[in-house]
Amino acid sequence: MNFSATSDLKEIRSAVNQELLNFVAIENKYLNEIGSELAPVAQAMERFLLDSGKRLRPLFAYIGFLGTGTEPTPQILRACAALELVHVCALMHDDVMDASDTRRGAPSIHKAFEAMHGAEKLSGSSAQFGISAAILLGDLALVWSAKMLHQSGIDGETLIRALPMYDEMRVELMAGQYLDVYEQALASESVERSLKVARYKSGKYTIERPLHFGAALGGANQDLMKTYSNYGLPLGEAFQLRDDVLGIFGNPEETGKPAGDDLREGKRTVLLAKTMELADEKSKAEIKGALGNPDLTITTVAKIREIIINSGALTEVEELIAALTSSAQSALEHGEIDPLAKVALEQLLTIVTQRTL
Amino acid sequence: MNFSATSDLKEIRSAVNQELLNFVAIENKYLNEIGSELAPVAQAMERFLLDSGKRLRPLFAYIGFLGTGTEPTPQILRACAALELVHVCALMHDDVMDASDTRRGAPSIHKAFEAMHGAEKLSGSSAQFGISAAILLGDLALVWSAKMLHQSGIDGETLIRALPMYDEMRVELMAGQYLDVYEQALASESVERSLKVARYKSGKYTIERPLHFGAALGGANQDLMKTYSNYGLPLGEAFQLRDDVLGIFGNPEETGKPAGDDLREGKRTVLLAKTMELADEKSKAEIKGALGNPDLTITTVAKIREIIINSGALTEVEELIAALTSSAQSALEHGEIDPLAKVALEQLLTIVTQRTL
Repeated sequence: MNFSATSDLKEIRSAVNQELLNFVAIENKYLNEIGSELAPVAQAMERFLLDSGKRLRPLFAYIGFLGTGTEPTPQILRACAALELVHVCALMHDDVMDASDTRRGAPSIHKAFEAMHGAEKLSGSSAQFGISAAILLGDLALVWSAKMLHQSGIDGETLIRALPMYDEMRVELMAGQYLDVYEQALASESVERSLKVARYKSGKYTIERPLHFGAALGGANQDLMKTYSNYGLPLGEAFQLRDDVLGIFGNPEETGKPAGDDLREGKRTVLLAKTMELADEKSKAEIKGALGNPDLTITTVAKIREIIINSGALTEVEELIAALTSSAQSALEHGEIDPLAKVALEQLLTIVTQRTL
Repeated sequence: MNFSATSDLKEIRSAVNQELLNFVAIENKYLNEIGSELAPVAQAMERFLLDSGKRLRPLFAYIGFLGTGTEPTPQILRACAALELVHVCALMHDDVMDASDTRRGAPSIHKAFEAMHGAEKLSGSSAQFGISAAILLGDLALVWSAKMLHQSGIDGETLIRALPMYDEMRVELMAGQYLDVYEQALASESVERSLKVARYKSGKYTIERPLHFGAALGGANQDLMKTYSNYGLPLGEAFQLRDDVLGIFGNPEETGKPAGDDLREGKRTVLLAKTMELADEKSKAEIKGALGNPDLTITTVAKIREIIINSGALTEVEELIAALTSSAQSALEHGEIDPLAKVALEQLLTIVTQRTL
């Protein structure tokens, strides 16, 4: 990879993957030295990272850096790749919190360790062992992220410039996750509240903060930071709204989750809140009956989809996605960004709102 | 507090507490700005920190720094205090993994949020909500620790010198925790394996690495690092062994846990492994029957205590604690350490092996 020129997203993603695998290989060697009992941990971490993943946060960080016009280095790429391990933590812990059995078509971490416990005929509860392992693997991923960043080889001054953004990103992630969990428990039907969760969970964590992190690595000025916020916040909300649509309408082969999984989990999304605003009483009762039912049939999922479409909620959400995307696009037009980075940010805009890479 | 002179542990501990409360007050203000829904998170974090806690890791770090003979500052104290938040994460997640209902005599975090879910009549499973909240609060504590360290005000060069030790400490903690969880699941009776868990869980995480962290902040040479290892590793094992003894023989008023709680949780400790080596078949069967039974009566706890004493295991473990403590003591005699720090390390040695502060 030529660090001085490329802003090709696939090339960057492939280089990010390589950095992650290099880091995990060294760390796994260390885990195995501590004890062979840690081999399943090492294998699970590697398998999780090898599974497809869009590497959105490293991509946004790296493009955020390129936008400053500073010459990139392998060390910078490595620092950006470290953000993916924060996301690994979020996903592993999320699956425990949502009691999700699968992740990208494979067993989630707690399910994999629950199965290992059963297969080895270990003592105590297999489910509890699985949960404990997933909590610890998530914690380890969070710590590994910091270690990878610290050891990336970037100089001290650059590192210290980026740490505040790195910290904000992680605090906002945890706060956003709590808001999300609480929102589900409230069984809220408020569009406004759902949008707020989307803002913290995705607007800031997935797009704005990674861009700021990369920008800080490159020594950005306040104008560029502002442009990234104007681009990142609406785009992040659009990203979450697309996620909500896919959670109910997505193709299992593409999402790696069963059809209508968000309904089974009882997720309170903007799409559902809009539907509750617009649908008639009978339809609303049907949705309430279906939400959070783990044994929901494909027939009921189809019925709920019909209600969402007929209520006009899907159209409204698609219009909202389009408006947010257009607002992000316009921020790019008005900001002063390195031209190569601008092209890449336009591509990323399409990727996160349409989900193809 | 006079930073140029004191090595009084109570004074340092009180200053550490103040730094932690200052930090959490600012962070909680930020959480409340994100949303009033986060108020219970903020309150729980503060309550958890206000509860008594020995602050062992900040103390070892600060004394580790003093040992270098470098002049201390409020910024250094703040950086050392940040280690406590790593421990808060460990405790919150540990209670989920052990399904412990109490911590220091109060409800554990997952139990407190489970109760809140019930009281607010929220939707979904109260137990699952409690677990989700405890996972996220633990994650937040881990992230806050890093933020507190980064913002401590120490200069960049000092921070960068200490980060590798900070990272090692956290990786070893997570690895040690997994070894511990796996050990319980193996229902292992191996003294050697239990000692290895003690080494990672406590030897390194509680004592050696905090000392190294403080030493790195003070720009220590390799000799002092080695002395700290020679002191910290045996002392950490002694600390864990004392913990094991208290887990079965401790006074609930002092431990904040019900009498014999380790038996109910089925903890595989060195004390139990020794007992299984030494006791007769009938006694071993009794122990096996009792271990991991959550409804264990106080009568059975008393019976098991008798078996442990009569087998000679308690005496052997007390001898092991004494030998490890003496080995730590001798490391202090032979190492080159600032005299004030040496006195404090001798006091800490008594505190962690006898548990009074």
